[in-house]
Amino acid sequence: MSTRYALTLSCPNRPGIVAAIADALFRRGFDIQAAHQFDDPASGRFFMRTVFVAAREEADFPALTEELEGLRARFGMKLALRDQSVPRKVMILASKFDHCLVDLLYRHRIGELPMAVTAVVSNHPRESYGGLDLNGTPFHHLPVTRETKMEQEAALWALVQSTGTELVVLARYMQVLSDALSAKLSGRCINIHHSFLPGFKGAKPYHQAYARGVKLIGATAHYVTADLDEGPIIEQDVERVTHEATPEEMIRRGRDIERRVLSRAVAWHLDDRVIMDSKRTIVFAQ
Amino acid sequence: MSTRYALTLSCPNRPGIVAAIADALFRRGFDIQAAHQFDDPASGRFFMRTVFVAAREEADFPALTEELEGLRARFGMKLALRDQSVPRKVMILASKFDHCLVDLLYRHRIGELPMAVTAVVSNHPRESYGGLDLNGTPFHHLPVTRETKMEQEAALWALVQSTGTELVVLARYMQVLSDALSAKLSGRCINIHHSFLPGFKGAKPYHQAYARGVKLIGATAHYVTADLDEGPIIEQDVERVTHEATPEEMIRRGRDIERRVLSRAVAWHLDDRVIMDSKRTIVFAQ
Amino acid sequence: MSTRYALTLSCPNRPGIVAAIADALFRRGFDIQAAHQFDDPASGRFFMRTVFVAAREEADFPALTEELEGLRARFGMKLALRDQSVPRKVMILASKFDHCLVDLLYRHRIGELPMAVTAVVSNHPRESYGGLDLNGTPFHHLPVTRETKMEQEAALWALVQSTGTELVVLARYMQVLSDALSAKLSGRCINIHHSFLPGFKGAKPYHQAYARGVKLIGATAHYVTADLDEGPIIEQDVERVTHEATPEEMIRRGRDIERRVLSRAVAWHLDDRVIMDSKRTIVFAQ
Amino acid sequence: MSTRYALTLSCPNRPGIVAAIADALFRRGFDIQAAHQFDDPASGRFFMRTVFVAAREEADFPALTEELEGLRARFGMKLALRDQSVPRKVMILASKFDHCLVDLLYRHRIGELPMAVTAVVSNHPRESYGGLDLNGTPFHHLPVTRETKMEQEAALWALVQSTGTELVVLARYMQVLSDALSAKLSGRCINIHHSFLPGFKGAKPYHQAYARGVKLIGATAHYVTADLDEGPIIEQDVERVTHEATPEEMIRRGRDIERRVLSRAVAWHLDDRVIMDSKRTIVFAQ
Repeated sequence: MSTRYALTLSCPNRPGIVAAIADALFRRGFDIQAAHQFDDPASGRFFMRTVFVAAREEADFPALTEELEGLRARFGMKLALRDQSVPRKVMILASKFDHCLVDLLYRHRIGELPMAVTAVVSNHPRESYGGLDLNGTPFHHLPVTRETKMEQEAALWALVQSTGTELVVLARYMQVLSDALSAKLSGRCINIHHSFLPGFKGAKPYHQAYARGVKLIGATAHYVTADLDEGPIIEQDVERVTHEATPEEMIRRGRDIERRVLSRAVAWHLDDRVIMDSKRTIVFAQ
Repeated sequence: MSTRYALTLSCPNRPGIVAAIADALFRRGFDIQAAHQFDDPASGRFFMRTVFVAAREEADFPALTEELEGLRARFGMKLALRDQSVPRKVMILASKFDHCLVDLLYRHRIGELPMAVTAVVSNHPRESYGGLDLNGTPFHHLPVTRETKMEQEAALWALVQSTGTELVVLARYMQVLSDALSAKLSGRCINIHHSFLPGFKGAKPYHQAYARGVKLIGATAHYVTADLDEGPIIEQDVERVTHEATPEEMIRRGRDIERRVLSRAVAWHLDDRVIMDSKRTIVFAQ
Repeated sequence: MSTRYALTLSCPNRPGIVAAIADALFRRGFDIQAAHQFDDPASGRFFMRTVFVAAREEADFPALTEELEGLRARFGMKLALRDQSVPRKVMILASKFDHCLVDLLYRHRIGELPMAVTAVVSNHPRESYGGLDLNGTPFHHLPVTRETKMEQEAALWALVQSTGTELVVLARYMQVLSDALSAKLSGRCINIHHSFLPGFKGAKPYHQAYARGVKLIGATAHYVTADLDEGPIIEQDVERVTHEATPEEMIRRGRDIERRVLSRAVAWHLDDRVIMDSKRTIVFAQ
Repeated sequence: MSTRYALTLSCPNRPGIVAAIADALFRRGFDIQAAHQFDDPASGRFFMRTVFVAAREEADFPALTEELEGLRARFGMKLALRDQSVPRKVMILASKFDHCLVDLLYRHRIGELPMAVTAVVSNHPRESYGGLDLNGTPFHHLPVTRETKMEQEAALWALVQSTGTELVVLARYMQVLSDALSAKLSGRCINIHHSFLPGFKGAKPYHQAYARGVKLIGATAHYVTADLDEGPIIEQDVERVTHEATPEEMIRRGRDIERRVLSRAVAWHLDDRVIMDSKRTIVFAQ
């Protein structure tokens, strides 16, 4: 089977972009397998995701990349080209609650998430996760206190760099990243917040939801930016609750919502289906 | 067919309430057709809805009401007893957008909402509603400006009183009621807000939702209190949107969500299924 | 504002299709505003929807259509090109229950459904629809009995032809169309079935759903084919029910599901977002 | 903390049942913490779930049980009284796909499912489940062929009996139980079927769903009866799919639906919230 490439791009919309890309792929011997595009009428920007394979013997990848570089310059594109057969390197951060961590590792194990897990990092020790088979993945215990926060973030960043981590997943990691680290990870760090944002930012969202008497609770996966709980949203989902649901019951139901919302966001990111656009995201979901 | 009564009550929870009510109904010749109850572990309050009919010839309603009065005093109950065969008197307020108004009137026409519409009131003239068959329901045009607001609210309140209106429905009525009027209508005025509260309070919620890039939009029906958009929530619902949805498209989808959320809230209120409890509601939905 | 065209096509997938279309649009002076495509890995077929406007003065529509004709022949395309500023001619058929009819007409009135209603046809007389403002749309009463069915279908077909009707909507029309008429209307007749197909085909689906004890009820909008309740599905939706829901309550809830499912299917059809593909549909929904 | 008891019952509806039960609980010193009831207008049967604790020192459980026995006889009740502090004994059966098994064990580990797992049984060997920590739970490999089916079912039944198993969960167990065994386990065996029943019974439901072109896929948890895929439904849920979803993608999404539907059904059964009523279930869900 041929290598599969994913091309994602955005640029100011003007006539001829699709024709130029399609023509380049065709002439260089590649065959489009899936394509999504979006012309944003509000911003005037154009977004595109194309997945393609070498269709014929004469497929010439170096020539294609050179040609795409020309188009990038000509149209002012932000452009990413990726060989999808190489799994992305992903680091998972967790705290006390491990339902998202366990879920991501399980999905990875059965082949649902094409990634290479570089490390699991927690501010709790390895013993906290009884019953969790890491299957050889390195585990790092980086306990955080007010005093050690800077230092531990430095250790975390060193780990990201040394492992070549391309995506950091905050799987109910309960430490707030500093602005500096958030900025460094911009566009490659996904957090799960346990509320339907923008409702119930901050701490104890299920208790807030209970107090407000909402009839649906939710969770939100978003890219991390310096602005806490304000990053571009990738996915959200909700479940219905009644007056019978205590905060504890909401927390229980929330676990289900959180893990499916986070896993969808991660899966779409890994499949090059998400493009950040300022405070919003374009998600070419299946 | 027998008259159907709905009994709703709330009181501090203590042993013997259910036994006392059930026993009174039984001894006085009434048969329970539906019953819901809720013991709130957080507040220690007990809530109950019972629908019953005269089961036997010896059914004695005056004796029952007297007995219930005794229980009310003994248990410190807030208690409401209603003959469900008498439709509630409902006034509907609307503004420019008539989708909720049209929907409520249609549901009424086909027998879905057991109510008597006392009046339709709008700050826009009757001619704004082409194609709307009021079927004899009085229409009142009460245009509101900053100068006339007090005066028109007085006219509205006079209308509520003169018609014996028991429930006021704000069916996308775009004027904010004063604190004084809100207080007078407390527990008997339902508003539909076009966002998933507590997200996007205030004006232009769909534009706010678009700007924030949420992946689900929603609507909220709540009782009106002096605290705008903070009243006890009766019902909420959402629909999924993608990056392709413009604010205009969200408004279009929102109409569907708004009318079904509002109609459910009104239907449950009319069927005595909602009990206000401070900032929350108990909804014994079907 | 420029005229907006919608081009929809399907053909066996092979390299160069997108490039050829995009290039033709670009060279002839048209600008793509929205584009969706789908490569079906199972059938090897390619599907595309493109919406475009004349972008520059030199935009040449006759030249474009000629060029598209050439591509049609070359790639073996089924191809439809439509001026979206001309509303489609739509006939609505209804029976006793008018919730879908009323809903479609209301959406049309507020500008949500860009269509020209050629006629409302019913096997019940005009008087059955109290409170329905047809706003000048012709109403035809075509009562159907076993004896008159053939004859009335002939009248219906004559009406479709004389009015130039392009889409027939069966808005809870309770008469089964003959195979002959179904075949004639293939791909341009949408039915709403009051169950989540393929469950509960045939009569009284809510009673079937009740008997089976399902926990969700639904509705299905599909293109009509000779094979009853087996036509290609355009849209489906569901709502949760509990053991408390009687068949009558399911019917009541079903009305909400039916009208939103049917209106979505009609809206997508009118916006050239649906492509039939044998027993399935490609729906480029917003 | 007091022991919590759950009383569930059903009987022909007649006046005085609630009064009698409430009165008995009150007089014997017990306090109701949660109560749900349902008068089925179709069957004329009455269903009730009451959770109660010893409220006062004089609470007399033997006297209560004796009194309830009297009521059982008097009203013709099916009645079950259970001490909820004793976790139910549950056996889980799985086959090749372990997502439901893994999910149930995880929920058990974090305290979400109050049960004692007596055994995990599979027709695949222990080695098939890499990464699965059974935490001491016995694993039994009972491979099934046409020849050994009878014999292995006998072994399974012996295991159920020797372990005192009260609930058998078929967590994507791909062997069809014989009518004889199904009958023995009636009302205490829950299966997850990977379709939205009654659609797509039998094998390969996701491939059937794909072929039919449905727009929502689902899963169904039901009690096992001799009639395959026709048992009383406890819970169902769905997710939206588009034309882009291949059967493989549906299988992937289905795993999420299956595990949440099954876990809800099991949780409700363990909390005495489900009452079987012929082909339907009463579910007093939270």
